[in-house]
Amino acid sequence: MTASNGSEIAVRRTRALARLAVEVGANVAPGQDVVVLAYDVEYAGLARELADAAYQAGAHYVSVLYWDQHVKRSRLLHADDDTLDYTPGWWDRHIEECLERRSASIVVWGDPNPDLLNEIDPARAGRDSMPLTGPLHAMHASGEVNWTVIPGASSGVARRLLGSDDVDALWDVFAPILRLDAEDPVKAWREHVAHLRTRAEGLNAHGFEALRFHGPGTDLTLGLLRGALWIAAGFETNWGREMIANMPTEEVFTTPDYRVAEGTVAATRPFQLIGGPTVEGLRLRFEGGRVVEVEADVGADAIRARLESDEGAARLGEVALVDGTSPIGRSGHVFKDILFDENATCHIALGNGYSFTVPDLPEDQYGRERRGFNLSGIHQDLMIGGPEVAVDGLDGAGNATPILRDDVWLLE
Amino acid sequence: MTASNGSEIAVRRTRALARLAVEVGANVAPGQDVVVLAYDVEYAGLARELADAAYQAGAHYVSVLYWDQHVKRSRLLHADDDTLDYTPGWWDRHIEECLERRSASIVVWGDPNPDLLNEIDPARAGRDSMPLTGPLHAMHASGEVNWTVIPGASSGVARRLLGSDDVDALWDVFAPILRLDAEDPVKAWREHVAHLRTRAEGLNAHGFEALRFHGPGTDLTLGLLRGALWIAAGFETNWGREMIANMPTEEVFTTPDYRVAEGTVAATRPFQLIGGPTVEGLRLRFEGGRVVEVEADVGADAIRARLESDEGAARLGEVALVDGTSPIGRSGHVFKDILFDENATCHIALGNGYSFTVPDLPEDQYGRERRGFNLSGIHQDLMIGGPEVAVDGLDGAGNATPILRDDVWLLE
Repeated sequence: MTASNGSEIAVRRTRALARLAVEVGANVAPGQDVVVLAYDVEYAGLARELADAAYQAGAHYVSVLYWDQHVKRSRLLHADDDTLDYTPGWWDRHIEECLERRSASIVVWGDPNPDLLNEIDPARAGRDSMPLTGPLHAMHASGEVNWTVIPGASSGVARRLLGSDDVDALWDVFAPILRLDAEDPVKAWREHVAHLRTRAEGLNAHGFEALRFHGPGTDLTLGLLRGALWIAAGFETNWGREMIANMPTEEVFTTPDYRVAEGTVAATRPFQLIGGPTVEGLRLRFEGGRVVEVEADVGADAIRARLESDEGAARLGEVALVDGTSPIGRSGHVFKDILFDENATCHIALGNGYSFTVPDLPEDQYGRERRGFNLSGIHQDLMIGGPEVAVDGLDGAGNATPILRDDVWLLE
Repeated sequence: MTASNGSEIAVRRTRALARLAVEVGANVAPGQDVVVLAYDVEYAGLARELADAAYQAGAHYVSVLYWDQHVKRSRLLHADDDTLDYTPGWWDRHIEECLERRSASIVVWGDPNPDLLNEIDPARAGRDSMPLTGPLHAMHASGEVNWTVIPGASSGVARRLLGSDDVDALWDVFAPILRLDAEDPVKAWREHVAHLRTRAEGLNAHGFEALRFHGPGTDLTLGLLRGALWIAAGFETNWGREMIANMPTEEVFTTPDYRVAEGTVAATRPFQLIGGPTVEGLRLRFEGGRVVEVEADVGADAIRARLESDEGAARLGEVALVDGTSPIGRSGHVFKDILFDENATCHIALGNGYSFTVPDLPEDQYGRERRGFNLSGIHQDLMIGGPEVAVDGLDGAGNATPILRDDVWLLE
């Protein structure tokens, strides 16, 4: 553990990221409780720096909850089938407590050892949601908690991305993406988020009814949900605390009307199917809002199976715009981790929509579907933007306003 | 983490210890929930093996709770004084849940980095009881939970004990002490515990009213509490599950009558004052059950201060007998960790008694004191046995029966 976080570069980068997550991401308030969920004990170096930064920012109490993928693996190998959906009471209690006390939540994300669960039956793995349980997602969606998700660095992550155990080299990849190399990273992040908010406000002011993507293999028009807002990942809790839901973030996003999508679209980057293989060269055709044709160079069957998982899986739940200034896109890496990859370029997501983008969304499922809000058990992002893909906003009469050309943001 | 647990020897020993703790120590029942509390994330290698062994033994769900001394240090450095006794609700909930569900509890114990808290004001450190809180101790004392405490191995522990980071060498020290080098460690432990129980039964059959220790610098007679039983660390939960409270264990122990101790006693090994310095060459004189004179080659003032911490601190709460077959005593090491050191040779403890040794003990403080059961906020073991120290049991008329001579157990 210390071995993989011990170099001077790694320590300095780790500390800078911790400070960003506490001061800008979760934006911990003096007197607040903080829960740091480290998706694996491999990220102990970062978790410790987060706790230290939080206490220095005046936190009342910091709970560090370490998850361990090896323990998960033992459960999936040995526990009875009918126990795999069990969640211990103390876990649910920590979530209730976060909500009651309006705690801050910081998640250190990233699969530290992607091969660890290779021998596990995916059907069994899918039944064990710990630690990313429904109540945890609901807590983050509630608006009661200021939270952020940041990436962890470990030798396993370096191996996956760079083919070597070199954690320092991994930090070299992370540094520009997380703006750790800025003279004052906290200031750089505040400016970056303000910039994304300005973009979202511009899009909201235009009030487009649809978007059109046009490029090689792509000619897709998709309708936007009436009343849905464009949002940057920086927003406010119900009680007015600013936060950034994930770092990195480069996108502005909103919710499409699932009934309106026509045409073809070609994925412009490989992507990892959540809990599945990498998909390359994907082409989709939409009719009446639904995917009706799937082709791919690699992984076509896996994505076809995923689209059949429920009624909403073949329909759209999100559309997001990212321009060519994205340091993730510029890095050229496919991270196989959606925290990074969705911020590389423009993307759409098949599956469930984000309810917080629609201020007057009905509470009930029927009302949501009638409104055009997609419901599904999946949310699968896929990247469709790039320098050759033009993006226009369309008004009710079909008049087009250029938003992106040659990866440059044009909208005022 | 993997670095310090990765050698073939370390992996094999770690696995053997995990199996012992699950099958013999906590004695996990099929269908039980298990909580593994690792006193530090440094012990992740052992915690993972414990989880795996528990699931293989049919555990329903295994919660691994990793503590982190670095996070504790940040709290003690930065948090407000008046927050240090705060305990998060999820922590209390996990204890309630253990009691409700009669879970098994396995604690991986040992300070992984003894110098980490050097710069912390001991008064502040004393106010932060996490994770070893009162409710956790009460849970272990309740009889509702089958539990065990086992040692963790890390480079920090190796450095403290052996002066080098060599974890394999540490396992070489641990192996005979934990009977990991037996052909069948599980069988060896079952025989060992049966043997200790036979000793305890023998002592109970004799029904001694007092003990006398006699050797160089030692001539101490102490009264035993009426109705107190001799106990081996292997006992049963309220619902009849056998368990061993700590591994290693070499002792049989009972509760003295705090009003009856006369004479002098010389500690036969250095020991670490809990939360304080090492004490060497300690000599005590008792009158009417109370320490009235303290001398020591090193640490006399520290122990004098400790004896003044409350009314019961200068009186006896435990006496335990260990013979010369103890592999801890034979190792010659002073572990500065009571999990080991108290099992090196015969010892007495200043401070609070163990209520579970007295089946008909009154519930209230007044009744307990009237019975001769000592109450205190401290429990400080000190080793007083060895080949030169004779131990006799005394009946009501003062007739002596030899129990130990030349470190050999003589009692039938």
